[in-house]
Amino acid sequence: MSLHSDSLAAALAAIVGEPYVLTAAGDVARYCGDWRGRYPGAARAVVRPADTREVARVVAACAAHGAAVVPQGGNTGLVGGSTPDDSGTEVVLSLDRMNRVRRVDPLDNSMTLEAGCTVQAAQEAAAAQGRLFPLALASQGTATIGGVVSTNAGGEQVVRYGNTRDLTLGLEVVLADGSVLDLLTPLRKDNTGYDLKQLFIGAEGTLGIVTAATFKLFSPPRKVVTAWASVPDPQAAVGLLASLTGAVGERVTAFELINREALDQVLAHPLDGMRDPLAGGYPWAVLMEISETSSAMDPTSAVEAALEAAMEGGLVTDAVLAASGRQAEELWALRDHVPEAQRLQGYSIKHDISVSVSRIPDFIARADAALAAAVPGIRLVCFGHVGDGNLHYNQSRSAGMSDEAFRAVEEEVHARVHAIVAKLQGSISAEHGIGRLKQAAFLQYKPALAVSLMQRIKHALDPASLFNPGRLLPRSTSSN
Amino acid sequence: MSLHSDSLAAALAAIVGEPYVLTAAGDVARYCGDWRGRYPGAARAVVRPADTREVARVVAACAAHGAAVVPQGGNTGLVGGSTPDDSGTEVVLSLDRMNRVRRVDPLDNSMTLEAGCTVQAAQEAAAAQGRLFPLALASQGTATIGGVVSTNAGGEQVVRYGNTRDLTLGLEVVLADGSVLDLLTPLRKDNTGYDLKQLFIGAEGTLGIVTAATFKLFSPPRKVVTAWASVPDPQAAVGLLASLTGAVGERVTAFELINREALDQVLAHPLDGMRDPLAGGYPWAVLMEISETSSAMDPTSAVEAALEAAMEGGLVTDAVLAASGRQAEELWALRDHVPEAQRLQGYSIKHDISVSVSRIPDFIARADAALAAAVPGIRLVCFGHVGDGNLHYNQSRSAGMSDEAFRAVEEEVHARVHAIVAKLQGSISAEHGIGRLKQAAFLQYKPALAVSLMQRIKHALDPASLFNPGRLLPRSTSSN
Repeated sequence: MSLHSDSLAAALAAIVGEPYVLTAAGDVARYCGDWRGRYPGAARAVVRPADTREVARVVAACAAHGAAVVPQGGNTGLVGGSTPDDSGTEVVLSLDRMNRVRRVDPLDNSMTLEAGCTVQAAQEAAAAQGRLFPLALASQGTATIGGVVSTNAGGEQVVRYGNTRDLTLGLEVVLADGSVLDLLTPLRKDNTGYDLKQLFIGAEGTLGIVTAATFKLFSPPRKVVTAWASVPDPQAAVGLLASLTGAVGERVTAFELINREALDQVLAHPLDGMRDPLAGGYPWAVLMEISETSSAMDPTSAVEAALEAAMEGGLVTDAVLAASGRQAEELWALRDHVPEAQRLQGYSIKHDISVSVSRIPDFIARADAALAAAVPGIRLVCFGHVGDGNLHYNQSRSAGMSDEAFRAVEEEVHARVHAIVAKLQGSISAEHGIGRLKQAAFLQYKPALAVSLMQRIKHALDPASLFNPGRLLPRSTSSN
Repeated sequence: MSLHSDSLAAALAAIVGEPYVLTAAGDVARYCGDWRGRYPGAARAVVRPADTREVARVVAACAAHGAAVVPQGGNTGLVGGSTPDDSGTEVVLSLDRMNRVRRVDPLDNSMTLEAGCTVQAAQEAAAAQGRLFPLALASQGTATIGGVVSTNAGGEQVVRYGNTRDLTLGLEVVLADGSVLDLLTPLRKDNTGYDLKQLFIGAEGTLGIVTAATFKLFSPPRKVVTAWASVPDPQAAVGLLASLTGAVGERVTAFELINREALDQVLAHPLDGMRDPLAGGYPWAVLMEISETSSAMDPTSAVEAALEAAMEGGLVTDAVLAASGRQAEELWALRDHVPEAQRLQGYSIKHDISVSVSRIPDFIARADAALAAAVPGIRLVCFGHVGDGNLHYNQSRSAGMSDEAFRAVEEEVHARVHAIVAKLQGSISAEHGIGRLKQAAFLQYKPALAVSLMQRIKHALDPASLFNPGRLLPRSTSSN
């Protein structure tokens, strides 16, 4: 007799095995809420298939039972896109057991991994064959391949290597009818019809379940120069990026802006040995990485010269180059610790916006002013990827404010920031996606014709709205 | 009174003006056949709108009259995808009057152009602002932006900069109902829903009419090293690419393989001053370009050292570096003249295949043997982009063979080549697309599930099959 009184849970257990269907409250809890604690949900069941065939059969069973499927990877998403709602009717399909590296091919610079591999495991699999998988995220130890594909994740090296879409050569996807679409290929060029894999990249699990991916690999850097510079303002950071790119070309691998508040929050909750790399309480810092893949050349002196020229020109007030790999890691730890440090500060309001690079200073000036007027004393935590025009423009409550009071102004804060983004023709979600958190803003700012086209695509691929209903596109679209 | 007795032609004239609707046989001829002369067709009318609004109104008029629309750019395609069939019922919508550069933004490294701009005009517009638009094709003087987007064109610098898809930031598209989808954006990151522009890139005009595009721009090279090397065989070329990449990293901008037959055909029909750069009647040549965007570094000595090491290792038998920009142009002219020289040789059979880079030698060996067995004396014209695994693997008739006899074996030649491509998990169309020429092979080798999904997408966006019916996807799909 099955442990599951629910007929669907019993059917799932018959596919994946009894231990891999979870229904008890204690077992499902970690799959039902997001890490920021904003979307507590309930699942009809959590199912953990072992391979693509099992995923396909699970999908078919859920379709037969009319149960919505919420695919989940590392559950590090920020927009409520990978956890069940509170209805208790949705099935969480976790890819966490599908973590095999299927193939690493250093000669052809490609690699095929299952969806449940972490980004860090992917980096390590490539490195073991002398190759670079350049996707790098603060959450890389937990975030998975299926998740980064489904959200078109960006991260810290996009300025040089592109986002997940740019790195993806092929996909394997389970469709809503339980069929398996095998688009895995290491080919660099293939113009045989529509590039179907593009549909599933960044679709947030609404069009199919990504079960495996083939990625581009690169020659690893032979020489990495990491530097931390203090700059007077965002305009100087943009100017520094331009002159650095002029000096060393596309070797600029990362160019991260961090404001004083973000750095102060990190230093208030320091990890082992963290300290400010420069003195003087400067208002803005840039963490930059320049990497060289040729064994015959070294960009160090060109970087030093560019920084010296920037200091003479007033773009930089002080700078330090990491003298070792360990020092470089320490600089990166400061950057990567920002989200966690902000979480420890209390409730935070987050934005993930992009504008043209040249408009970054204008955006920050306008948004800072608008929020200071709306919420006196609000703390502005601003950091991000200047080279991509992408800022994580976040807020922490003012000193005397309660979390509850801060939550009460959240919609107002979002509205003000998004209005400025729209005015500057930017994006309200540069790399985090829409999920549930940003759906209202998405529908407000995205042209209606574009949304309507997305609905047509959704209906063509998933007519019963089996996959992640109500995320990204509103639920009502499932019935048209 | 209208010059046009056809009510649709009269309606089109009312939209774009009398002079821009062509119906007389002498006027429409140049729009009705492809440059290789393989698809002579007839048009109900050729219409040449001046702007996006006119395109939208033209589409709506054609839809109202039930007339299929065949979008056309520079008409340099190789697969019969942009010319009307011989029914005389299709309307050719030429974008040739829409050739405005809308915006070049050197600060944000982006550029927006209308569909009718030539690739060369796009390069020049970028260069005028100190920027590089890296798409480079033999047909760039005629091929247009709308065409390269609709075919996801590749070309000679893909190994470094990617294909047209990789270069495209945004699109403006007229849909089948006459609405205008404005996806023009210079943003580098924007995860607000499905990336709709991807649908239209490489769709060969079957899902919408691309009227404008926003592209990425790059820092121009400060130093370009161009070299021509003789190599003993394709395996040596693949080995040379790996060692060159190891020496100079991603500065390898082009790496073109050319066989003796291709070079001999060029030298038999030389343009002004063309000559073989090296002596000795070597069997294979590689034309390589290495470019450096940093003003602080020069890769010349690293390239020289890599070539010397390759000569010592037997990968290269001889090599010459271009001593001037003019010499570099002369080397490129040899490569770019191959298609025209082959045309002058008589009827040619063409393939545009890709395999993993490491499988190129295996592909050539198998295909050469299979064709020599099938058609004794057949001449194998092999050239292409080794870095992308993409070969133009073409054939000219044997010395004593007539064009007619050669045409008679064409299907057999295609079948043998495509079977080997399939066995090596390659693509039967790496960069030219499907059109009409390759539809049968596409349907034979593409998984049925993928084709079915494409049909669902086509039906969702163009339910009446107004746009380019029968190209890429078979005509029958229009009625499902």
